[in-house]
Amino acid sequence: MVEPHRSGCPINLTLEMLGDRWSLIVIRDILVGNRRHFRELLTQSEEGIASNILADRLKRLTENGLLSRCGDAGHKQRVIYSLTEKAIELVPLMAVMGSWGLRYTSASRELSVRAQILEDGGPQLWNDFMDELRHLHLGAPPPARSALARMQSAYDAAIVETRRPADLVLRS
Amino acid sequence: MVEPHRSGCPINLTLEMLGDRWSLIVIRDILVGNRRHFRELLTQSEEGIASNILADRLKRLTENGLLSRCGDAGHKQRVIYSLTEKAIELVPLMAVMGSWGLRYTSASRELSVRAQILEDGGPQLWNDFMDELRHLHLGAPPPARSALARMQSAYDAAIVETRRPADLVLRS
Repeated sequence: MVEPHRSGCPINLTLEMLGDRWSLIVIRDILVGNRRHFRELLTQSEEGIASNILADRLKRLTENGLLSRCGDAGHKQRVIYSLTEKAIELVPLMAVMGSWGLRYTSASRELSVRAQILEDGGPQLWNDFMDELRHLHLGAPPPARSALARMQSAYDAAIVETRRPADLVLRS
Repeated sequence: MVEPHRSGCPINLTLEMLGDRWSLIVIRDILVGNRRHFRELLTQSEEGIASNILADRLKRLTENGLLSRCGDAGHKQRVIYSLTEKAIELVPLMAVMGSWGLRYTSASRELSVRAQILEDGGPQLWNDFMDELRHLHLGAPPPARSALARMQSAYDAAIVETRRPADLVLRS
């Protein structure tokens, strides 16, 4: 098999660095769900990521400078993963991808809430969110407003909404 | 192997629909390079896409409603691929991905020009570009300004620039 030659296109290089979809799924879970340990990322995965795939992607993301890890390497459950600035700056990409998904995929209502908030909030909210991530992952000072709290409360409200028996309300 | 369960997250569904990186590379080449035939997409590929991968991705993108094809199915070289509205609306995603790549990958200068223009132009230019793509692919009226022409002339200028022997000028 002929190895495809490299190209210096920034879109291609981004896709090469992020790899397959699981890398972005893992970053999404750390970004939005603030899951920092292997076990949380494994057991709370909406997509049911397999343990070996998760381990491989965490390793690749760390090698590519998107995650940093600290803790005792001998105790897997004690390792804490943090986003680097490089990964935090994927927020606009996630937001735009979520917006496209809202329009062109059959996304579920409760899992669409955060994407909708990021779309509605636009670049200002994305910046607030990135500042909050810099606080949580890089030790920067806390931002004045919490974008995560705003997304979480909207998500919680949507969950309550979808669990209501009176689905008729939504159809009227 | 356990099949991962589906999730209704719009980011996950977008990644599932776009598949691996080759799908987005093919869309990029049609979007930016206006390559509409199999042969053009194959022979002009910066990344040296393999013929079987290109054929597979064109098929999948068509099945997923991102491309439409017309022409004589019996004559492969005669088939013309067009972007659908769904694919045209990937312009913001491409732009944001390009911006990230400009910062965090070692993109080559001449292949970074278009990404830089899309970043500088922001959502207004993305909209102009999408209008132009709707004209080229969906038969909509031509836009007042050509975003593609603007990107092409900047690209041509950058190519001339990189071919100059006096690289010292750039380092000073």
